[in-house]
Amino acid sequence: MERRGYRLDLAWRGERFLGWQVQPQGPTVQSVLEGALTKIFGGEPIRARASGRTDSGVHAAHQVVGIDALAPRAPEALLRGLNALLPDDIAVLRVTEAPVGFDPRHWARRKHYRYRLLRRAARCPFRAGQTWHLHGPLDLDAMQQAAASFAGRHDWSAFRAAGCSAAHALRTVESVAVQAVEDEVFIDVFGNGFLRHQVRIMAGTLVEVGQGSRPVASIPALLAQGDRTAAGRTAPAAGLWLMAVELGERPHGDGAVDDE
Amino acid sequence: MERRGYRLDLAWRGERFLGWQVQPQGPTVQSVLEGALTKIFGGEPIRARASGRTDSGVHAAHQVVGIDALAPRAPEALLRGLNALLPDDIAVLRVTEAPVGFDPRHWARRKHYRYRLLRRAARCPFRAGQTWHLHGPLDLDAMQQAAASFAGRHDWSAFRAAGCSAAHALRTVESVAVQAVEDEVFIDVFGNGFLRHQVRIMAGTLVEVGQGSRPVASIPALLAQGDRTAAGRTAPAAGLWLMAVELGERPHGDGAVDDE
Repeated sequence: MERRGYRLDLAWRGERFLGWQVQPQGPTVQSVLEGALTKIFGGEPIRARASGRTDSGVHAAHQVVGIDALAPRAPEALLRGLNALLPDDIAVLRVTEAPVGFDPRHWARRKHYRYRLLRRAARCPFRAGQTWHLHGPLDLDAMQQAAASFAGRHDWSAFRAAGCSAAHALRTVESVAVQAVEDEVFIDVFGNGFLRHQVRIMAGTLVEVGQGSRPVASIPALLAQGDRTAAGRTAPAAGLWLMAVELGERPHGDGAVDDE
Repeated sequence: MERRGYRLDLAWRGERFLGWQVQPQGPTVQSVLEGALTKIFGGEPIRARASGRTDSGVHAAHQVVGIDALAPRAPEALLRGLNALLPDDIAVLRVTEAPVGFDPRHWARRKHYRYRLLRRAARCPFRAGQTWHLHGPLDLDAMQQAAASFAGRHDWSAFRAAGCSAAHALRTVESVAVQAVEDEVFIDVFGNGFLRHQVRIMAGTLVEVGQGSRPVASIPALLAQGDRTAAGRTAPAAGLWLMAVELGERPHGDGAVDDE
């Protein structure tokens, strides 16, 4: 039999998982997905490749995954079979055929992360674990101004987790927008690759700007100095959502680490 | 010490609870709330009175509850203390002083229930347990027409669970509206009191109208004949939300059963 490639578009709630990547300590989206795939492909061990890693507790409204398998399956049958086997907090949105060896990490051209702040007095039982609940006033104008100065190609050393394993910290952020939507504030970040905790440290820093404890104009110096201890706190994983992964028309060579 | 009364405005996710009312088989919102109240009031057993019961798995965006206690507590302290003790899937939205013996069941003038249908091909991990996921076409115009004929004071015997303990089945439904909102359809029902499963049987019947398996004009005859077996299936509890409870300016005598 010949190997065949498939692209899976997934969504998941992050609360119950130790992120995407297989971990010995507990369930991850990759381990649960690979378990279901192995069942569907009659015991063949299947390796799932995502466009990037996500941390424990982070949600995905959309992630792209590539797999190869020997036993042929119709995409529609694979979609139905996977959704029947997977738990409720993981959904396969779409299955299509893909080149053998398809690795979304090398095709991802643009990613959209959203950080969600819940801005009401009372907590919300439907958004616990899916937002960062913040009390007190928040200056959105100041946050928007600070957010604008994140755009561009920078060395993000000040916005990088201690354990980040990327070879260098140069990444391009296309845009960062701050907007109020009902009782939430969305911080929308677009870029082609991110360092570990980058978006969460950006969110934590912007919240400090909004709370008035950090000057709006301080971002360029933060980026220039590259001192992690000078940036804001890492915002909780619960508020972070991978919203969309856009693929290019051909693979690129840049295996940028994406480990939020 | 003198007894004092409080009004609590609550919200909860229903997945983990066997409904509102205390049950020997497992956790209910009432049992968890009363446990937290007893802790806060130094061991005094507290009884919580809701505006009505809700079934296992049903959600509340807003429910009104009355309690009495001997030890005085500032409403603001009670709010903070309860939210610190309660699990994430129950939230106290507001605490205010109320007359001793305040029983929201006798004050509720209007209730708003929403039934949520999820209308997309793929399931959604963020709305599993909170919507009824339906595939295939749905004729919203037909559903709207059928919904309109529910309004009024009727004998709802055809829309009542077998185990419903209400003395009679006369209830007034103010309005029923069907609207598409993004990838969902909302069935919004307003009335002052409901029988057990009434809204879920109404939703199940309207879905059959939308799917074309039941004529639009069949509702008046269903109501007139009062035959439960002639109405639609009971829609799953997961899709049902108690959205709001409106209280009148004074209590009324009608202790209508409300047990969705």
